[in-house]
Amino acid sequence: MSKKDKRNVIVGQSGGPTAAINSSLAGVYRTAKDRGYKKVYGMIHGIQGLLEGRYIDLSEHIRTGLDAELLKRTPSAYLGTCRYKLPSISDDRGVYENIFKILEDLQIDCFIYIGGNDSMDTIKKLSDYAIITGSEIRFVGCPKTIDNDLALTDHTPGYGSAAKYIGTSVKEIIRDGWALETTNGQILVVEIMGRNAGWLTAAAALSKGEDCDGPDAIYLPELDFDIDKFVKKCKEMLKKKRSIVVAVSEGIHTKDGTYISELGNATEYVDAFGHKQLTGTARYLCNILSAEIGCKTRAIELSTLQRAASHCASRVDILEAYEVGGAAMKAADEGDTGKMVVIQRLSDDPYQAGTEVKDVHKIANDERLVPRDWITKDGTYVTNEFLTYVRPLIQGDVAPIMVDGIPRHLYVPGYQELL
Amino acid sequence: MSKKDKRNVIVGQSGGPTAAINSSLAGVYRTAKDRGYKKVYGMIHGIQGLLEGRYIDLSEHIRTGLDAELLKRTPSAYLGTCRYKLPSISDDRGVYENIFKILEDLQIDCFIYIGGNDSMDTIKKLSDYAIITGSEIRFVGCPKTIDNDLALTDHTPGYGSAAKYIGTSVKEIIRDGWALETTNGQILVVEIMGRNAGWLTAAAALSKGEDCDGPDAIYLPELDFDIDKFVKKCKEMLKKKRSIVVAVSEGIHTKDGTYISELGNATEYVDAFGHKQLTGTARYLCNILSAEIGCKTRAIELSTLQRAASHCASRVDILEAYEVGGAAMKAADEGDTGKMVVIQRLSDDPYQAGTEVKDVHKIANDERLVPRDWITKDGTYVTNEFLTYVRPLIQGDVAPIMVDGIPRHLYVPGYQELL
Repeated sequence: MSKKDKRNVIVGQSGGPTAAINSSLAGVYRTAKDRGYKKVYGMIHGIQGLLEGRYIDLSEHIRTGLDAELLKRTPSAYLGTCRYKLPSISDDRGVYENIFKILEDLQIDCFIYIGGNDSMDTIKKLSDYAIITGSEIRFVGCPKTIDNDLALTDHTPGYGSAAKYIGTSVKEIIRDGWALETTNGQILVVEIMGRNAGWLTAAAALSKGEDCDGPDAIYLPELDFDIDKFVKKCKEMLKKKRSIVVAVSEGIHTKDGTYISELGNATEYVDAFGHKQLTGTARYLCNILSAEIGCKTRAIELSTLQRAASHCASRVDILEAYEVGGAAMKAADEGDTGKMVVIQRLSDDPYQAGTEVKDVHKIANDERLVPRDWITKDGTYVTNEFLTYVRPLIQGDVAPIMVDGIPRHLYVPGYQELL
Repeated sequence: MSKKDKRNVIVGQSGGPTAAINSSLAGVYRTAKDRGYKKVYGMIHGIQGLLEGRYIDLSEHIRTGLDAELLKRTPSAYLGTCRYKLPSISDDRGVYENIFKILEDLQIDCFIYIGGNDSMDTIKKLSDYAIITGSEIRFVGCPKTIDNDLALTDHTPGYGSAAKYIGTSVKEIIRDGWALETTNGQILVVEIMGRNAGWLTAAAALSKGEDCDGPDAIYLPELDFDIDKFVKKCKEMLKKKRSIVVAVSEGIHTKDGTYISELGNATEYVDAFGHKQLTGTARYLCNILSAEIGCKTRAIELSTLQRAASHCASRVDILEAYEVGGAAMKAADEGDTGKMVVIQRLSDDPYQAGTEVKDVHKIANDERLVPRDWITKDGTYVTNEFLTYVRPLIQGDVAPIMVDGIPRHLYVPGYQELL
C-alpha cells in the first residue's frame, strides 16, 4: 500500500491500568506517524467508550517530544480503560455493525488494542467479523498486564515495573521491621495483587540480596493455602527471628477454592450503624496470627500503587512496552490482522528479547500461571529459576521528570469530561 | 579541649524509623571522626539496648565512603530503635547509675540521641543527671520524626522524604482512579500516618499541580471529624466527578475524642474461629460510604512504606538530616549539653535554612500541630501557606544505588543477633 493511500489509526486501552501501558500508547502513536498515517485516534475508555462515540485525536495531546516522554512516565491509562466483553458475533451482530460503522466513518485502517486476556478476545472477535464481512480494517493486539498471565508471550509489559516496585517496597518493609523490638516478635503480612496467577507475589523475592534476607515465606495462589500449616510455620519462624515478613497473594484460597479474604468476610460483621465490615486477606491472616501466637502483626496491602508506581518503573519494561506498541502498529500496517504481538526471550544473561506476532486465537482467554517447579516443594517460596526469569525485567530506571519535587505526568486536557 | 584528650562518642536512634534517620547517623559519625574522637559507638536499640550492654563500634560498619553513602540511602534505623522512656531521676536513680557506669566504662565524652519527643526527654534527663552528679559527659539531641511534631524546630528530618513519598503516591493513586469507569462512581480513601499531628496527611496536597487536581478532600486530626458531614460531602463531590480521592489521617476522631478506627472496632467482630477482626480508619469509612452512597470504594493504607521509602527520598531532607547529625556532634564537641539541634528557616524561596541549638528543656514532650489557619475554614483541605511551607522540603532526589534492579542498603553484619 503506498503511503498516500494510508488513512487513519485508532488505538484503545483496556483492563487494569499499569505503569507501562502509556508507553505502549506512545509507541503506537510514534510508529503510526512514522509510517504515514494521517490521524491517530484514541478511544476513550476502550471499545465501550468508542461505542458511545467517545474518542480523541491523539495529535492534540502528544504535540511534542517532551509530551511523548511524559506519556511514557505517566501511570494508569491515559485514555481510560474498560472491562467490556464483546458478545459473540452470533449473539449480537448489532454491536459489531455499530463498531464497524464508527470505524468506517473515521476512515480507520488499523485498530490497535492494548490490554490483557479480555482485550485479546476483543481483537479476536473484531478480526473475525472483519473477515466475515470483507472489511479491510486490521486488528492487532498489544499485550499489557501487571498480572503477567498472558499465554505465548515470555512476559507482559507492565509486569516488570510492578515487580520492581514490589521488590523495592518489600525490601523497605523488611528493613522497617527490624527497627523496633517487640516482646513476642512480630509478623508483617504483605498482600500483593494477583487473583489466579502468582507472578506479582513471587516478585517479593526480588528483595533478597547480599544486604537483605528477603521475605521469610511467599504464598502464591497456584497452590492451595492451608491456614493451620501457615500458623505453624509462622510460629517456627518466630523462634529464630523476631521480625517475620510474609508475602501473600490476594488470591490465596483453601483446598475447596474459598478465598482467604472470603473467610474473613464470611460472618456478617455489622457495626453499630448496620454497615457490613469487610476485611482483606492480609488483615484476616494477621488477626488469626495475633490470636493464635499472641505476637504483634501488621497487614500491609500494596494496593493500587503496585500497578501505578511510575516513579519506580523498570527501564526494560517501559522501553519494551514502547517497542511492543510500535511492533503492533507495524504489524497492522504491514497487513496483519487477528494477531497479538508477543515478546520472545532469546537469552537471560545478557538479557535479549525481540517481538513476534502470533495468532490471537491461540492466546485469548488462556491464563499462564507460575510453573509448579518454580515454586519450592513445600510451597512457601519461589526457586532460583523464577529469579533468573524475573531479574532482567526489572533492570534500569526511568528517571521521573520532576517538577516542584513531584513526578510530572502528561495532563489530559478536559479529563473530567473525557474520562 | 585539645584533640589528643578526646575520648569516645556514643550515638543511638530512638522512636519510629524514617528514611532519613540513618543519614543523621552518618553525619554524627563523620563529624565525630573529623573532630578527632577515637571510637564512635552505636547503641543497639537505643538506651534500652545500651542498658543491656548492646552496642557496636561503628567504624567496623562504616568502613568506606561508599558505606556512608549507602547508609544515607538505607531506610529504617540502622542501629534499631526503642520506645523506652526513662523514669524520673527521683523515682529510679539506679537506672541512671547503670547508664553512667556503662558510659564511663566506654570512656564516653559525647552522647548523641537521634529521635523525637521521647528521645529529647531522654536527653533532658541524662543531661540533668550529669549536672547533678558532676559528670562531664555531654548529651545532645538530634531531631527526627516523620510526624514533624517537634517544637521549636521549623521541621524535622524524615518529614520531607515522607511528604515526598505521600505526594508522589497519592498522585499515582489519583491517576489510577481515572482509568476504569464505574456505574455509580468511586471513592478512594487514603489513610496516612499521624495520630495527633496532620503534617503527613496534609502532604497529600503536594500531588496537586498543573497535571493533577490533587485529593478532593483532606482530613487532619487537628480538627474533630464528623461522619455525617463527611458522607454528605462525598455525595456532593460524586455528583461532579466520578473518581474521588480523600486523604484521611489515621488519627481522625469524633468530637468526643473517639478515634474513627475505634468505631470500626467497637463491636466485637469475631469470625467463625473466634478471632477478633480489626479494621482501619480508611476501611471503616469505605464501608460506611458503600452502605450510604452505594458507590465503589477502596481503602488504601500507605502503611509503613511512608516512613521507609528511601527509594523516593527528598534530597533536601537527606542532606539536612546529615547536617543536623553533624551539628549535634559539633555542639557536643564544643561543650553543649542538654541541647537539641533545630532547623531554622531563613527563607522559603529560595529555600535557605541553618541549624541552631536550643535548650532541650524547652522542647521535650511538647507537640507541634498544623496551625488552624493552615487548614481551610470548612476543615476539608490545607491552605497555600502550608504548601509554601512544605514544598522546599521535598525538593531534589537521592538516586538509590541500584544493584540488580533494586536499591542497595547498608548491610548490618550479623543483624539477627544484633537487632
